[in-house]
Amino acid sequence: MCRHAAWLGAERSLASLIDEPEHGLLKQSYAPRRQRHGMVNADGYGMGWYVPGRPEPVRYRRSVPIWTDANLPGLAAVARSTCLLAAVRSATVGMPVEESATAPFTDRTWLLSHNGRVARDAVADLCDAAESTCDAAWVAGAVFQRGRAGAGLGESLAEVVVQAGEKDPAARLNLLASDGTTLAATVWGDTLFHHRFHDGVLVASEPLDDLPGWQAVPERSLLTVTRDDVRVQPL
Amino acid sequence: MCRHAAWLGAERSLASLIDEPEHGLLKQSYAPRRQRHGMVNADGYGMGWYVPGRPEPVRYRRSVPIWTDANLPGLAAVARSTCLLAAVRSATVGMPVEESATAPFTDRTWLLSHNGRVARDAVADLCDAAESTCDAAWVAGAVFQRGRAGAGLGESLAEVVVQAGEKDPAARLNLLASDGTTLAATVWGDTLFHHRFHDGVLVASEPLDDLPGWQAVPERSLLTVTRDDVRVQPL
Amino acid sequence: MCRHAAWLGAERSLASLIDEPEHGLLKQSYAPRRQRHGMVNADGYGMGWYVPGRPEPVRYRRSVPIWTDANLPGLAAVARSTCLLAAVRSATVGMPVEESATAPFTDRTWLLSHNGRVARDAVADLCDAAESTCDAAWVAGAVFQRGRAGAGLGESLAEVVVQAGEKDPAARLNLLASDGTTLAATVWGDTLFHHRFHDGVLVASEPLDDLPGWQAVPERSLLTVTRDDVRVQPL
Amino acid sequence: MCRHAAWLGAERSLASLIDEPEHGLLKQSYAPRRQRHGMVNADGYGMGWYVPGRPEPVRYRRSVPIWTDANLPGLAAVARSTCLLAAVRSATVGMPVEESATAPFTDRTWLLSHNGRVARDAVADLCDAAESTCDAAWVAGAVFQRGRAGAGLGESLAEVVVQAGEKDPAARLNLLASDGTTLAATVWGDTLFHHRFHDGVLVASEPLDDLPGWQAVPERSLLTVTRDDVRVQPL
Repeated sequence: MCRHAAWLGAERSLASLIDEPEHGLLKQSYAPRRQRHGMVNADGYGMGWYVPGRPEPVRYRRSVPIWTDANLPGLAAVARSTCLLAAVRSATVGMPVEESATAPFTDRTWLLSHNGRVARDAVADLCDAAESTCDAAWVAGAVFQRGRAGAGLGESLAEVVVQAGEKDPAARLNLLASDGTTLAATVWGDTLFHHRFHDGVLVASEPLDDLPGWQAVPERSLLTVTRDDVRVQPL
Repeated sequence: MCRHAAWLGAERSLASLIDEPEHGLLKQSYAPRRQRHGMVNADGYGMGWYVPGRPEPVRYRRSVPIWTDANLPGLAAVARSTCLLAAVRSATVGMPVEESATAPFTDRTWLLSHNGRVARDAVADLCDAAESTCDAAWVAGAVFQRGRAGAGLGESLAEVVVQAGEKDPAARLNLLASDGTTLAATVWGDTLFHHRFHDGVLVASEPLDDLPGWQAVPERSLLTVTRDDVRVQPL
Repeated sequence: MCRHAAWLGAERSLASLIDEPEHGLLKQSYAPRRQRHGMVNADGYGMGWYVPGRPEPVRYRRSVPIWTDANLPGLAAVARSTCLLAAVRSATVGMPVEESATAPFTDRTWLLSHNGRVARDAVADLCDAAESTCDAAWVAGAVFQRGRAGAGLGESLAEVVVQAGEKDPAARLNLLASDGTTLAATVWGDTLFHHRFHDGVLVASEPLDDLPGWQAVPERSLLTVTRDDVRVQPL
Repeated sequence: MCRHAAWLGAERSLASLIDEPEHGLLKQSYAPRRQRHGMVNADGYGMGWYVPGRPEPVRYRRSVPIWTDANLPGLAAVARSTCLLAAVRSATVGMPVEESATAPFTDRTWLLSHNGRVARDAVADLCDAAESTCDAAWVAGAVFQRGRAGAGLGESLAEVVVQAGEKDPAARLNLLASDGTTLAATVWGDTLFHHRFHDGVLVASEPLDDLPGWQAVPERSLLTVTRDDVRVQPL
């Protein structure tokens, strides 16, 4: 059920998440190595990045397999940023396959991807309005609603995951979000890894390559990444 | 804002609504003659038809202009039924262009198309759940909800149109629906015509050709067509 | 590189090739069991069927994964014929993913699917014009050209496969074709199976289920199926 | 049959061709003012731009109406370059609607858009290979072939237009091309305008706004724009 990845640090291209690493999101779309649910992530993909002078991210989504989009290689090579986020989707059975149901979702300066699934009943009370009727859009709407009310990025993620997880014990709620200067991610039912470099931090559902340095983030925790700090807290 | 058409009578092909008449839905998609809002209907199209032994209609939708779908001519020629409904879409600005936002919507044996627009606030209380976040899906959801609770086709349309129209005086709510044996349609802010033949009745947003026999249905009324009867009642 | 299947016999629905069998083309699109090249068949799908009174087949193609097309279940359930053909596509790297590059290709009464790949140089002289620049469209064009010149279905397939195979020894050229009353298929580099029933014959790249009766067709042979006969000849 | 536009000069965003001007390509897609053939340009759109340090342009194409692509506003706002080219398509009847048939076509450093139509026989001898079977792709292939053989941008356009125009007197062959430092365009059967600013030059099928300064380029001529010069020569 989806794979996602993000970078915070020195300027990089989106290609550094997608096609440059041996097991980047392109490869993970048809041959993920750590995916516990679903076999391929061919129900769409999306990416968001931040550009100087524009607080809102640029966001690009398609509802086709990432490997079929001939526009991608050029865009991924030239779209460079200090903060990048991308995701490939495996739709929950019965959910529509269309752009409005594809991560990343966005609201003001925030971007969000959901790797997992949750019963609609468990999020219905948490969210007034969402872009799509799919579960991930409702989760995103719930997080964005807390953000507009003044909560911080990690705080909003944590609150939504814990509340939805209580109502639906079978939920898987790995979220990955950014506001352009921070990355925040939850681990709730699926894998998550991070990798520190001298000039930044990668966060991904599963390692993008076989190089040393990838660290698994423990189940039921919140990961927060800033330019100066990587913090893991229990949820 | 959309054009729709339907047939109830002797078995006909979908082509009889789409490409056989000089001003069928194919032509209306790029050159409508009576459209009051919007210029082209190129944001998708859909069609539904009933097959013996299967109470639920077959439903087909695409989010591309009807003239670009190379699959259509073959399907429209061989899909034959005593009850047909089709629509071409002009999306309200800001609404997503995707299949789940495209008419006809369907639930159990019912099919529904919405030609118009309405504020979400005006339908929010009328509908518990809808397929998409677009206004037409909410209108459809409100009608289907009344049907599942036991109301008839025309009765459900009338109730939703009158209630939504009261809350949003600027709403345009021309609906066209079927249960396989009846057609029902409302006139609320846009044009509607019907045409009786010896073997059936056509209903359409605007005449499909220049032949005599098309009759305008008056504003704020409900049209109900059965095999034996065509009735117009004020709303 | 693609999976295909066909039926000739008593009237059946397209669902009998796609979603009714446990390992039909729907399952084969994401979890094929005998595929030698490629991992998933998510680059589009297509189907063709013959309708009484219409010599040309009805043909339907999409360039998205078969499991994402919400239109399919309804169409596959009601499209019934004595002669059916369907295919799911894994695009050769570098080939476009679009409808005009997706099987089945069609010309007059013939339908054709290509499971494999071939160098363009090896088919360039065999074909004056094709629908798309992809290798499969050129192979189809070469077969159709022989048909228009008077050659029979199996004869046309055999000639193209042998000639292209000589020029490109690495070519894989499993073709499956029909004219509405006959199925013809070649085995040249990939698997093919057939299964006789009392009321017809199934032909498929790999068995659609685990029931007994599937027979492998030997490498480098031509299979010809009519209502009365199943014949295998060496190529 | 299509509208196109390009800019050469100080760095600008793609939005300056598409949605910022009152009659930019977005408006021209559904309400062109000078189009002689076709009514809307809703069969796809594309754009190309040059990025420092990368000789090849970045190229982006979709086969849907430009107004339905929710990815466009963000991309058009942040894609900035000294050399931009964009086009909206009205497909010739019978031509496929898909990305590989959509301008701009590209080869090495060149970008090309074709506004018009031409018989395939008239270009068949001019081109060894093209990306798609549509007429515009063949025209592009013929131009690119001359470029790879050493001919200049304007020279290649002129040769192809004159040769194809001789063979098909009904051809319309308005081409617009770039190599990143020059714009070249032909006028052969449709309108073309240019507009000089202190910091660059706009070229477009029809004026992007009602401001003074747009100059019509005469029929049967070649326009060449460099940083220092705008030249019009007869063809």
